[in-house]
Amino acid sequence: MRILVLGGDGFLGWPTALHLSARGHDVAVLDSFVRRQYDFELGTSSLVPISNLHRRVGTWHDVSGKTVTPIIGDLTDAEVVQRAFRHFEPDAVVHFAEQRSAPYSMIDRSHAVYTQTNNLVGTLNVLFAIAEYDPDIHLVKLGTMGEYGTPNIDIEEGFIEITHRGRTDTLPFPKQPGSFYHLSKVHDSDNIAFTCRTWGLRATDLNQGIVYGQQTPETGLDPALANRFDYDAVFGTVLNRFIVQAVVGHPLTVYGKGGQTRGMLNILDTLACVELALLNPPNAGEYRVFNQFTESWSVSEMAELVTGALPGKHSIEHLVDPRTEAEEHYYRAAHTKLLDLGLVPHLLNDEVIGSIAELVAKHRDRIDPRVIRPAVQWRPTRPPSHPTSVAADGSPARRESVR
Amino acid sequence: MRILVLGGDGFLGWPTALHLSARGHDVAVLDSFVRRQYDFELGTSSLVPISNLHRRVGTWHDVSGKTVTPIIGDLTDAEVVQRAFRHFEPDAVVHFAEQRSAPYSMIDRSHAVYTQTNNLVGTLNVLFAIAEYDPDIHLVKLGTMGEYGTPNIDIEEGFIEITHRGRTDTLPFPKQPGSFYHLSKVHDSDNIAFTCRTWGLRATDLNQGIVYGQQTPETGLDPALANRFDYDAVFGTVLNRFIVQAVVGHPLTVYGKGGQTRGMLNILDTLACVELALLNPPNAGEYRVFNQFTESWSVSEMAELVTGALPGKHSIEHLVDPRTEAEEHYYRAAHTKLLDLGLVPHLLNDEVIGSIAELVAKHRDRIDPRVIRPAVQWRPTRPPSHPTSVAADGSPARRESVR
Repeated sequence: MRILVLGGDGFLGWPTALHLSARGHDVAVLDSFVRRQYDFELGTSSLVPISNLHRRVGTWHDVSGKTVTPIIGDLTDAEVVQRAFRHFEPDAVVHFAEQRSAPYSMIDRSHAVYTQTNNLVGTLNVLFAIAEYDPDIHLVKLGTMGEYGTPNIDIEEGFIEITHRGRTDTLPFPKQPGSFYHLSKVHDSDNIAFTCRTWGLRATDLNQGIVYGQQTPETGLDPALANRFDYDAVFGTVLNRFIVQAVVGHPLTVYGKGGQTRGMLNILDTLACVELALLNPPNAGEYRVFNQFTESWSVSEMAELVTGALPGKHSIEHLVDPRTEAEEHYYRAAHTKLLDLGLVPHLLNDEVIGSIAELVAKHRDRIDPRVIRPAVQWRPTRPPSHPTSVAADGSPARRESVR
Repeated sequence: MRILVLGGDGFLGWPTALHLSARGHDVAVLDSFVRRQYDFELGTSSLVPISNLHRRVGTWHDVSGKTVTPIIGDLTDAEVVQRAFRHFEPDAVVHFAEQRSAPYSMIDRSHAVYTQTNNLVGTLNVLFAIAEYDPDIHLVKLGTMGEYGTPNIDIEEGFIEITHRGRTDTLPFPKQPGSFYHLSKVHDSDNIAFTCRTWGLRATDLNQGIVYGQQTPETGLDPALANRFDYDAVFGTVLNRFIVQAVVGHPLTVYGKGGQTRGMLNILDTLACVELALLNPPNAGEYRVFNQFTESWSVSEMAELVTGALPGKHSIEHLVDPRTEAEEHYYRAAHTKLLDLGLVPHLLNDEVIGSIAELVAKHRDRIDPRVIRPAVQWRPTRPPSHPTSVAADGSPARRESVR
């Protein structure tokens, strides 16, 4: 299969590209390196040193004898997208190429606008390229479990059968996303579903949980193939971040009560799920959603798992939650469709924590403790130049009084 | 009340601004005149001649003694929005300032991207301006009944109580919008709801049906106050278009079977609904949705109403539907919340049709029959330069074979 991996220089795109290449697929990666730019902007960097894309694909060729074709460009440029489709002629497209950080999207107006326009326009350009070049191309799009929010009912995989006033229909599962980033994924999902209904495209939307881990069989073959590892409060995911905190003796920073429960998965399962989706494409006109995670953990449970798994004394610090989210809530989400396709999950345990901690310890001199604590607030504080007005009833519209 | 009307030079924005000004509110209108640009692009123009905004507000001052403040600028420019809020200090914002045509959004990739980024960025800028300037400002946002699509269950006003596997929650009503324009309204709704949940903003989302009519008590006071009237296939709404067709002896163009049923309302009720929303604001943190229409009609029923109401012989032509939509479907949508606030609907009847036809007849020499028939197809035909590939199974993914 000829597979175009969009965002193929990133945390999940790069190991996915190698995984698919190792299994005999023809792979091209398209990337604009904007993820590397975010590091410059935020003063962050990958814990594990990473090579540039040209060196990465060159080393992969040396090590495996296989070719991964690099295409440099930005998805929001329609010409770039059209050219990539024309020259590479993909059978399938795996789309990781989005701004993927909720805190980044909440920094301020311009980051919110950037996140939503970047993600939405890139995906629209891909949909139009598929429609124009070959509507049979299977789009595998990375979504997020965060699209659903935390409803008080069981979360299904994309759709729910609703019986209402004596009539029944199967409709898109209602979404309550929790950041401008998560909203951008909902916008994408709606746009993709529309093009399947209207143009007969075929798409798989992978509503992914929170990924932990870093190394895969392929990225471990050579230091120049190494995958990035983010531990900062903006791009680092919760479990990887906790392990870094434990290794450097920083308190584990739990936001609020820590009852926030989320679907989690090992990076190895991300690769397996994407491949399963590719090997089992939907029908023409079908928009399907897989909930891509293997187990649910609360943030407090994860913190306890990490402190229990790693030697030494560790403390847990409950910060005032910088996000607006339920700190305790019902959470039960279906995730059987990928299991039905054959997924064999890698579950979270002390050994997995230990191996990630080992990697972190190896690079501990590269850790900058200043980027670990959250600096982005979901509730913007008004600039001091503005007059501060307080509602007579102290109502929560006045955000200053909420915190 | 100080009310900022965004898109206040348009088909609904202008009469709303005058209506609110006539009732004693302090009104400013913000507009970029992009709607007038669409006319240049499409070779269309308002059936009724309209003055420029400066002449409009000047005449309104002469006629009524009241001031409507014009602000010229584009909502996608954050500085424009911030300056408008700082200088006018609104208590409420009525937001009509979006690309509002479904066919326009379906012209091609660039019109789809334009529609979604224009509408999404403008609304984000307004939300950030409210949050930063004064979170108590009430946002009254125009949405559309088209956000819901045509589910096989009753449509509720924004939210639906769902009982699922023994648990119950009230969740956003599932949406199945039918064009990139309708999708942009869903994106907006999701963004607005998020800012109410997260920042405590207060917003009313008016999911409006299809508006017919043109004149209001205020726009009828002087020719320089006249409202625009669109009859072309891109911006003209169905009933107004049918009346123009009947007046000029053009067959009434029904798309497909004509069983498409939609909520409709008189332009006079749009003004009344917006005012009712403004006078009865939601609580801080509340995102509420009103379905803003007064009665449901199928397209065929409307065509029959028009041919029956107007003298002479008229024919109805069923075109192959240029849209992808159900041509016959269940449709029942709640619309009690505005009635509960006191709305007294103007219903559709022969007399209303007759008075619109009278207006059309007065300007019949300005009608260009070339812009009446639909030219925009929902299913893009592939450019002839592309190789045409046909699926072995003739599957509907191949859009050429669908039509």
